[in-house]
Amino acid sequence: MVEAHSMRDGVAALSATAAFNAWAGFEVVDAADGRAELKLPWRADLGQYAGFLHAAMIGGMIDTACGFAAFTLSGRVLASHISVNCLAPAAGDAFVARARVVKAGRRQVFAHAELFALRGDEEHLVATGDVILVPLASGADAAPANGDTARSRADASAR
Amino acid sequence: MVEAHSMRDGVAALSATAAFNAWAGFEVVDAADGRAELKLPWRADLGQYAGFLHAAMIGGMIDTACGFAAFTLSGRVLASHISVNCLAPAAGDAFVARARVVKAGRRQVFAHAELFALRGDEEHLVATGDVILVPLASGADAAPANGDTARSRADASAR
Amino acid sequence: MVEAHSMRDGVAALSATAAFNAWAGFEVVDAADGRAELKLPWRADLGQYAGFLHAAMIGGMIDTACGFAAFTLSGRVLASHISVNCLAPAAGDAFVARARVVKAGRRQVFAHAELFALRGDEEHLVATGDVILVPLASGADAAPANGDTARSRADASAR
Amino acid sequence: MVEAHSMRDGVAALSATAAFNAWAGFEVVDAADGRAELKLPWRADLGQYAGFLHAAMIGGMIDTACGFAAFTLSGRVLASHISVNCLAPAAGDAFVARARVVKAGRRQVFAHAELFALRGDEEHLVATGDVILVPLASGADAAPANGDTARSRADASAR
Repeated sequence: MVEAHSMRDGVAALSATAAFNAWAGFEVVDAADGRAELKLPWRADLGQYAGFLHAAMIGGMIDTACGFAAFTLSGRVLASHISVNCLAPAAGDAFVARARVVKAGRRQVFAHAELFALRGDEEHLVATGDVILVPLASGADAAPANGDTARSRADASAR
Repeated sequence: MVEAHSMRDGVAALSATAAFNAWAGFEVVDAADGRAELKLPWRADLGQYAGFLHAAMIGGMIDTACGFAAFTLSGRVLASHISVNCLAPAAGDAFVARARVVKAGRRQVFAHAELFALRGDEEHLVATGDVILVPLASGADAAPANGDTARSRADASAR
Repeated sequence: MVEAHSMRDGVAALSATAAFNAWAGFEVVDAADGRAELKLPWRADLGQYAGFLHAAMIGGMIDTACGFAAFTLSGRVLASHISVNCLAPAAGDAFVARARVVKAGRRQVFAHAELFALRGDEEHLVATGDVILVPLASGADAAPANGDTARSRADASAR
Repeated sequence: MVEAHSMRDGVAALSATAAFNAWAGFEVVDAADGRAELKLPWRADLGQYAGFLHAAMIGGMIDTACGFAAFTLSGRVLASHISVNCLAPAAGDAFVARARVVKAGRRQVFAHAELFALRGDEEHLVATGDVILVPLASGADAAPANGDTARSRADASAR
């Protein structure tokens, strides 16, 4: 078992290697024991027409938080299904996604996340989501299931 | 019925007002009669760990294309559910999302989209998705269903 | 506010009017304040190939429990989206679905449910699910959104 | 490659071994090459409150048709995710689900289905759905991923 603090640091280092995560400004607040918390300060260029958080970012935060939660139990994973319920307009000074693994199977990991908008001292639930992730095993299993890609198997396994 | 060319121009103008869409570089290829096509040239800062298109952008393209398809039939809409299947690593020189309305109800619009990666002359299906959208009616119905937001009702109706 | 006991009785009476619910043997254990619990004793004719609970019954219990939970807050509702994660083989002496409303909006109600298999004294989580429901308002709104049906508006509103 | 006619017969024989399928009256119209068609004549005990097809049967037909379509390409499979959009009240003399495999991966099979209500000579689209299925490999892989079940591995592999 990796110690919780170093697990958070490891996940933060992993996140920093993803160019989109770096641009977005995702902050890994916590990651350990099948759970992860991700924070995103609001910026105008994250918004849609009305100045609310764009659905891409809502789904992206849920996907990323679930992926980190799964990573703490199952190592490298690949998201195969993402489902998002938008409950209320995503307006706030910052956003926090809290994810937990519901079931860590050998073939599939099921994770659930809630997304909160922070407004002053209050948290408002604005979205929920579920993600199904496929653990990337070592050796012959390391390539994505359907990987007819221009990039290499080694790259694919690191998705 | 709005003429198809001006509908595409109207949707492109709408897209330009969303800061995230402008940053991402979404191009409205077509939008008319319950269908929409959205293109996104690849850039490194759209990528995840392995250099594939980030799940946020996969979901964001599907959500945006479905929203534009719904807009051509039902006017302003609000996405309430987004479901995405990631079929293969999203690697390509550009990406195209093609959306169509499956059912335009008075209370809910159901839309479906396919996302293709362009590699040279070939298109590869990398994801599919479904979006449920709520039409924003005029008058008292113009605010989001669950809109306890810091922003105004007028803004909310424009999401 | 209806008293909790009579709410459960009212939901049980409602359930008894649905022919499939009566055949299946759904028991309304509880229903009040945005929550509902539904029980189903195992019978061989509820099974699939291997003798586990059929996916139709897994989805049916989740849909029904979520509908009852929504009913306690929003009255008659119509399910528009059902999403089910099958976490483990559904084998047990009986099954219990516990549902709660996540957000009761004016246009859409979002509910979540967990399905447990009972084996002796233990409960095992075998599935989770989310359901989006549309409240059926009075008057002109009472018909289903997309109701080009052979049956009457009055019937449709009671779905 | 199995000849199409005997594939349909094989799937029909498989369906007959599922007690719920037999009770429901599922008819395997066709099954070959990643596609399947399933028919269900209407009966009153398949109905919900208003006499429409119960959501359990809507989801059950979509799940079963997708499972049969996947079986023609990947052999025995296990459904892990089921998503259903209810587009219109499911009223008809009979119902037909048409499923096709969207992507047959080694780890996951993605299938899509449409459900039609037959009224006289007309077909009406009443629901769509997506199912993710996990192929059950031979040997050590034959047990369900999360199979802490009271029943045997051999049974589980036949789900």
